Amino acid sequence: MSETEKLIQLLVQFRDDRDWEQFHNTKDLAVALNIEAAELLELFLWKDANEADRDRVAEELADVFAYALLLADKYDLDVVDIVERKVQQNRIKYPVDKAKGSAKKYDEL
Amino acid sequence: MSETEKLIQLLVQFRDDRDWEQFHNTKDLAVALNIEAAELLELFLWKDANEADRDRVAEELADVFAYALLLADKYDLDVVDIVERKVQQNRIKYPVDKAKGSAKKYDEL
Amino acid sequence: MSETEKLIQLLVQFRDDRDWEQFHNTKDLAVALNIEAAELLELFLWKDANEADRDRVAEELADVFAYALLLADKYDLDVVDIVERKVQQNRIKYPVDKAKGSAKKYDEL
Amino acid sequence: MSETEKLIQLLVQFRDDRDWEQFHNTKDLAVALNIEAAELLELFLWKDANEADRDRVAEELADVFAYALLLADKYDLDVVDIVERKVQQNRIKYPVDKAKGSAKKYDEL
Repeated sequence: MSETEKLIQLLVQFRDDRDWEQFHNTKDLAVALNIEAAELLELFLWKDANEADRDRVAEELADVFAYALLLADKYDLDVVDIVERKVQQNRIKYPVDKAKGSAKKYDEL
Repeated sequence: MSETEKLIQLLVQFRDDRDWEQFHNTKDLAVALNIEAAELLELFLWKDANEADRDRVAEELADVFAYALLLADKYDLDVVDIVERKVQQNRIKYPVDKAKGSAKKYDEL
Repeated sequence: MSETEKLIQLLVQFRDDRDWEQFHNTKDLAVALNIEAAELLELFLWKDANEADRDRVAEELADVFAYALLLADKYDLDVVDIVERKVQQNRIKYPVDKAKGSAKKYDEL
Repeated sequence: MSETEKLIQLLVQFRDDRDWEQFHNTKDLAVALNIEAAELLELFLWKDANEADRDRVAEELADVFAYALLLADKYDLDVVDIVERKVQQNRIKYPVDKAKGSAKKYDEL
């Protein structure tokens, strides 16, 4: 079993022990992911990038991974597969010769 | 090398081929993660949970994983480790006997 | 009629001309508000604060106000009233002598 | 002085009494707006639209208005003006005959 499959198994077990699947529809999982992403972002508010607390970043980032993994599980998506596909797409959207050193969006390159 | 390490290697290679590390400070990565999480959420806007398009969910979820992995890399955090620690913390915050079948936050249980 | 009441009337008219109230439950309005806030934030991604385009900020900020006003309308909340109350609460949470010159959250002051 | 101008004056006074303008660059204000929008959204997490607590909605919505107004002030944007312009634009993007009863985005109509 792969690393992400093991994490999903752990998260699903935690969820099912608490009978929480009834709340975990995909829309609310996406809502939860946004809330956790915002809690992570709050660690940087009014601060320079290097001033966030690493331990708290670890905790909030873990929550982001947890909901992202639960969503992947709900849609039966393989994390490695979807990330590799997206990188492949982005190689086309952001060719090295155009995108190198530029922070512009693909539609402005 | 583990699954997440391989994904991080792929993402870092993509980034470095484009000389983008100069933009990827941790605060902007957290901002990017929030933007991608919102793009994922938009697939559910004005809809029931089951009406989102699975292929587009896969794409937006891939972006969420990409920025979450790049952040983990910046802080030298092991994904499996931080998720396991968080689940362990949540076992204490949400004991089965109190949390079972309830969607309440730990401070309202 | 006050300024915000006039704006709400304009937005409600636009919505009702399109028969969109059926989609505008409070939860989806809150989702929409988050999506628009993220689109605003995207104008600052990988950039310094002063590099965002003012015209695009105006457009995205208008969307944020639109959904915030529609939510206020749904709950029959007066914008001036709720903002004044919140400032009053924050005067207590952030007393001048403690908060002056500090970016800390009230629970860390 | 208009309603929104009075609110901005109140918020600016609160900010300046605490010497907080040094933290309030436009990028961090946009970050703060996203965090407050997510806190509002959290009131709906795992719930039906009608189950959010109105008093807490009022509080979080007030925070959203506060940061949106402070951003408008930073860019010297008139709230009524930008919302009216956006509604005018949306009349073109979402013509009544095409958009009526549909939740589709303008590029899918």
